[in-house]
Amino acid sequence: MIDLYYWPDIPGRGEYVRLVLEAGGLKYRDVVRLPEAEGGGMPAMVAFLEGRKGYPIPFAPPFIVDDGILVSQTALCCAHVAAQCGLAPEAEADRAFALSVAVTTADFAAEAHDTHHPISVSLYYEDQKPEAMRRAEDFRNNRIPKFLAWYENLIENNPTDSGWLVGDRMTYADLGLFHTCRGLAYAFPNAMGEASQAAPKVQELCRTIAKLPKVIAYQGSDRALRFSTDGLFRRYPELDPASGGQ
Amino acid sequence: MIDLYYWPDIPGRGEYVRLVLEAGGLKYRDVVRLPEAEGGGMPAMVAFLEGRKGYPIPFAPPFIVDDGILVSQTALCCAHVAAQCGLAPEAEADRAFALSVAVTTADFAAEAHDTHHPISVSLYYEDQKPEAMRRAEDFRNNRIPKFLAWYENLIENNPTDSGWLVGDRMTYADLGLFHTCRGLAYAFPNAMGEASQAAPKVQELCRTIAKLPKVIAYQGSDRALRFSTDGLFRRYPELDPASGGQ
Repeated sequence: MIDLYYWPDIPGRGEYVRLVLEAGGLKYRDVVRLPEAEGGGMPAMVAFLEGRKGYPIPFAPPFIVDDGILVSQTALCCAHVAAQCGLAPEAEADRAFALSVAVTTADFAAEAHDTHHPISVSLYYEDQKPEAMRRAEDFRNNRIPKFLAWYENLIENNPTDSGWLVGDRMTYADLGLFHTCRGLAYAFPNAMGEASQAAPKVQELCRTIAKLPKVIAYQGSDRALRFSTDGLFRRYPELDPASGGQ
Repeated sequence: MIDLYYWPDIPGRGEYVRLVLEAGGLKYRDVVRLPEAEGGGMPAMVAFLEGRKGYPIPFAPPFIVDDGILVSQTALCCAHVAAQCGLAPEAEADRAFALSVAVTTADFAAEAHDTHHPISVSLYYEDQKPEAMRRAEDFRNNRIPKFLAWYENLIENNPTDSGWLVGDRMTYADLGLFHTCRGLAYAFPNAMGEASQAAPKVQELCRTIAKLPKVIAYQGSDRALRFSTDGLFRRYPELDPASGGQ
């Protein structure tokens, strides 16, 4: 049984891992969302972070514990569970590159986060809003187009012509791109609407994943958490003006 | 033969990979620093980034190419080469956690970078200096102490009591911490001088690595590049005032 540890009220970075678990049909416990009486709740997670569960000690959630193995960092958690449910490539070169893509997607998500927290994670958004306006403008105008062009390029040049990022079938790298695009469409609907037009293959990949029965069932369940202004991807209209905000 | 691709004039993120290659005594080519006549120079790297070498296409340097396998992302490059020279753990749980640590160290380095580029990588430091002042203050006061406390805690709780972060011998995770501490001591000598006092085991680990013959030989060679105000770790005195800058 795989135990996932993450903040209980936001999709955040945990959602990347949860999506692989759900799309892969794996059994898992979303530990912090279980009652304390069943070993869940925040105390279960904090015990790891504060070292009270002994070594190893994760730096931050999400992390997973699976048969004595602890893995932290979003992309590594995804890779670990994907290998158990056919959502990781099998060939060594593809395996290595899928992880390179997933870690890059985690960087992209971190940049999305920093649009609303460019100065400090210890401060509220409201206390770093002028800086957020500036960083978001750069993110919309330079970073979103750059990342999307790269993904588009990968799909286009994938020698299997499968429509996926790596190899001839869907992997956790694709699920990571799918969730990032969902998060960005929530947080930056104007900028993403525009940028997506230059990335038709990315759009097609996302549409294909959105139609998978396991993904539909999961997203309609109470296991899935909704985006909000507490998470990784946040909708602050002033950070995504309709005109592109040049 | 392992080919490393990275910007030719700065230690940057490439240094993390180079240090593992050097400490592990592996043969490698630092491709961009070779003459163009030998297949080196910037054109060799740009060909990959622009997709002219075909699939897979890395998002950014550093990346390595090793016997047909392309790996990008600093921590993944380090893990890949470490596995070939006895600098990765052997036990599965330790292997998984060492990579978690290395990816977290890459995040720490990215935060160090963002102290001088909090708004945009497309702008000069001088064009984002007020924001840099604010972000650097948070980095000095909150983030450096938090990361160092975590590394210290790992060494202290490592069940093998080896003085290393993971398992009973030095791994690429330790080399990553070592280089990060070097970079921070260059960029933030005042803040690091203070923060290090609470992390004696981290200091000891760094001293041990600094005394390794392979590391000494490498650092004295022209294969090693010097820190400067063009790289990942930059010394701008205004970002590290002597008083702590509260």
